[in-house]
Amino acid sequence: MTPYQQLEARFRRLGALEEAIGVLNWDNATMMPPGGAATRAEQLATLSLVAHEQLTAPEIGGLLAEAEDERPALDPWQQANLREMKRRRGHAAAVPGDLVEAVARISAECETVWRKARPADDFAAVAPSLEQMLRLQREVAAAKAECLGVKPYEALLDRYEPGGSTATIDRWFDEIAGFLPDLIEAALARQAAAAPLDDPPGPFPTPAQRQAAARLMEAVGFDFDHGRLDVSAHPFCSGAPDDVRITTRYDERDFTKALMGVLHETGHALYKRNLPARYRLQPVGAARGMAIHESQSLLLEMQACRSLAFTTFAAPILCEVFGGAGPGWEPEALYRRQIRVRRGLIRVDADEVTYPAHVILRYRLEQAMIAGDLAVRDLPAAWAEGLNALLGIAPDNDRDGCLQDIHWYDGSWGYFPTYTMGAMIAAQLFEAVLEAVPDLTASISTGDFKPLFAWLGEQVHGQGSLISTAQLVERATGSPIGTASFERHLRSRYLDRRNEPA
Amino acid sequence: MTPYQQLEARFRRLGALEEAIGVLNWDNATMMPPGGAATRAEQLATLSLVAHEQLTAPEIGGLLAEAEDERPALDPWQQANLREMKRRRGHAAAVPGDLVEAVARISAECETVWRKARPADDFAAVAPSLEQMLRLQREVAAAKAECLGVKPYEALLDRYEPGGSTATIDRWFDEIAGFLPDLIEAALARQAAAAPLDDPPGPFPTPAQRQAAARLMEAVGFDFDHGRLDVSAHPFCSGAPDDVRITTRYDERDFTKALMGVLHETGHALYKRNLPARYRLQPVGAARGMAIHESQSLLLEMQACRSLAFTTFAAPILCEVFGGAGPGWEPEALYRRQIRVRRGLIRVDADEVTYPAHVILRYRLEQAMIAGDLAVRDLPAAWAEGLNALLGIAPDNDRDGCLQDIHWYDGSWGYFPTYTMGAMIAAQLFEAVLEAVPDLTASISTGDFKPLFAWLGEQVHGQGSLISTAQLVERATGSPIGTASFERHLRSRYLDRRNEPA
Repeated sequence: MTPYQQLEARFRRLGALEEAIGVLNWDNATMMPPGGAATRAEQLATLSLVAHEQLTAPEIGGLLAEAEDERPALDPWQQANLREMKRRRGHAAAVPGDLVEAVARISAECETVWRKARPADDFAAVAPSLEQMLRLQREVAAAKAECLGVKPYEALLDRYEPGGSTATIDRWFDEIAGFLPDLIEAALARQAAAAPLDDPPGPFPTPAQRQAAARLMEAVGFDFDHGRLDVSAHPFCSGAPDDVRITTRYDERDFTKALMGVLHETGHALYKRNLPARYRLQPVGAARGMAIHESQSLLLEMQACRSLAFTTFAAPILCEVFGGAGPGWEPEALYRRQIRVRRGLIRVDADEVTYPAHVILRYRLEQAMIAGDLAVRDLPAAWAEGLNALLGIAPDNDRDGCLQDIHWYDGSWGYFPTYTMGAMIAAQLFEAVLEAVPDLTASISTGDFKPLFAWLGEQVHGQGSLISTAQLVERATGSPIGTASFERHLRSRYLDRRNEPA
Repeated sequence: MTPYQQLEARFRRLGALEEAIGVLNWDNATMMPPGGAATRAEQLATLSLVAHEQLTAPEIGGLLAEAEDERPALDPWQQANLREMKRRRGHAAAVPGDLVEAVARISAECETVWRKARPADDFAAVAPSLEQMLRLQREVAAAKAECLGVKPYEALLDRYEPGGSTATIDRWFDEIAGFLPDLIEAALARQAAAAPLDDPPGPFPTPAQRQAAARLMEAVGFDFDHGRLDVSAHPFCSGAPDDVRITTRYDERDFTKALMGVLHETGHALYKRNLPARYRLQPVGAARGMAIHESQSLLLEMQACRSLAFTTFAAPILCEVFGGAGPGWEPEALYRRQIRVRRGLIRVDADEVTYPAHVILRYRLEQAMIAGDLAVRDLPAAWAEGLNALLGIAPDNDRDGCLQDIHWYDGSWGYFPTYTMGAMIAAQLFEAVLEAVPDLTASISTGDFKPLFAWLGEQVHGQGSLISTAQLVERATGSPIGTASFERHLRSRYLDRRNEPA
């Protein structure tokens, strides 16, 4: 075997190990009895350690160097695979083993403390752990920045969004922060001027909600021979391309939460399902990054399914499953309820208009913390001030403020910006597919998602990690990533009088 | 760290890897969508390979040798742990890597062919694969026999029943084969002379069956904070001590199948749950072997729960859950239906009286095949002849004959005798606990299983792999393992006029 072929064999094994870790994590969140937690933690720690050892084995370094000589003979996918192997190895090798261990330990500890501190609104209880976490994340950032030749924050971001640049994200987010306050104000004004919306009274039994969700998942293209829908406290998508598993949670007073959540996760699931099978378990066959991943969930949820076309298709199914009837179940009414805007304190409950404010806040705060410009003890005040500037509201407690998200407490620093990058890319891709497939809206209104996913499969899913996020979006849409499509989308849906629901 | 401590650390990691494999196998049988099979096979193959590499790593050999010098300073558990480490290492290292791979390949292939050949009653279709399987199993047996210093068949048996001796098992099984035909005949005669038994008509909906099963599991001592009950095609028990998972399958015409199956698996589960926590993930903390494991499931199912005491406790619960009433739901009637005897062709459907005939047949046949005295092509004829001698019936097709069990086709050679060894040990342990806890029958009739499991916990579960199966049983019962208790049990339950149901 050539050095490159040996690398493929080694990374294939690593990929299978990571998939096994994924199964254990899925089980953890969906099936595991509470008493199994400690046992599972040890199983996961062991598998992670084995995976880390395989990735940092000295032979991999040697093979990566030798494979460089082979590069001219490799095809573009293989060359990209080699690049991604180096990137992954770089992340693993940049951080000394004792720091990796320390981060794993503080992540488990800090998350545990946070799980009690959040409901108790007790930021002081978790602050010492969070300070240790920040100190270690800054060490990791510095170590990786040195190896990767990027800024410390970018070194953390790179795990989720390879090649992500803070200069670019700063520019995008400043643009959004520039137009958003007025846009929110205007959307709320238009909404206030419209006829009031009554919600169907419910309750909506969980089995019926599950049935509706599964029917719409299948209509969109989810294949239950290659996946599952389950319940977990926090919705997610995991699994392997041939076995993609999504979760949701059901609120019997409001069926739309689970339904739209399921469609969101189905967007993630179909991306995973349609990754290039030829490079399964190879780094180049993996998803491009979290911004593209989120663009696929948001494209399905926000662009395709929060639309009159979709509710036109879905209304009869929902009426049948829930026994609904009357004006509140008309496609127009369903759509109007799907696009309500509200200034709120909680990110995960936010609509697509106010959502970027939550993300920009967190992005700016975590950047400042990693830069050493914001101390943990000053976080609550900075949070209130920042949210007020972006959204015009502020929490009067930390539970609804800097304690609400798990990310900083479980060690996911650098993740937040990918949410809004995903929203931007989703809008940009959807504009492009509307142009490429002119009757797309009509086909969605009949429940035919094949044209949409044919285009996405070619332009996005099947590309794996062949090219960068920036190249992928520019190739698919003809323009570099920017905020224009996202702004157009928001203005059109929430302000344009022609799109105003009756 | 001393060499012994280093070994503990390495085996702890190996134990966690094996637990992870267990989770993946459980998921495979209970949750995985059909399209995930190939992906899962690769994940499992990878984890198995990693575990095998860890166990056969040269450093382990060095540490095991060095740890011998430490032995005088080790306590009995640590010494036993060292012995079990050597045993496990011996099994792994005895077989060359390419033979391990070849066995894994033929096991997957032969099982796949068998899954189609069985329903089609087509032994000829699977015979070539089975011949290859036999050839490779004989190679493995020869290689291990050389290293372990035992007979080839014993080298296979040792994986399931450490230290198992064919001379001893031959003697036991010859004794059972000696008394069984007359005992079966007499039991059938007594049964025929009694009033006919009508089964409650049903149907018994699966949710009600599950509810009844879960209530009885909890009464027996199963803790759902540390375990689960799910559905699979073939019932099993897996998981870790803090997360024990059992499965069953439901037949809506007959609730007793799932119920007794669940109690059987609960016996396995409580053994696993109560293994010595101090040695979790260490070889000495594992179950002693499949004979003891099966003794725990059969002790609960056959000794404790197929009894008038148990149906006295269970009858009101079953009446409540299934809405049962009338004479067919009386404890006596429930008990009589639980102890019906029938000569049948299928092992997994057999009662406890005829079961040993099925096991002895398979044990003798696989011994002959490993010895080279029986060719695969002669198996169907040998099966018919052997079953006829033991049970007085013979199949007229291979589906109900040598195609019925998965064991030879998936590579589990040497497993069969542990079923009947388990039944023997269960009877012997139950006699001992009845002596140690004189009011045991009364406490079972009120649903109080604590006295039973206190004794089992001390005598069996908490012993892990500290001593041999033979030592464990002799220490717990005062006698070496033998067939006397089992024979007494069968004669008492099925022949003694004093125990004759009204």
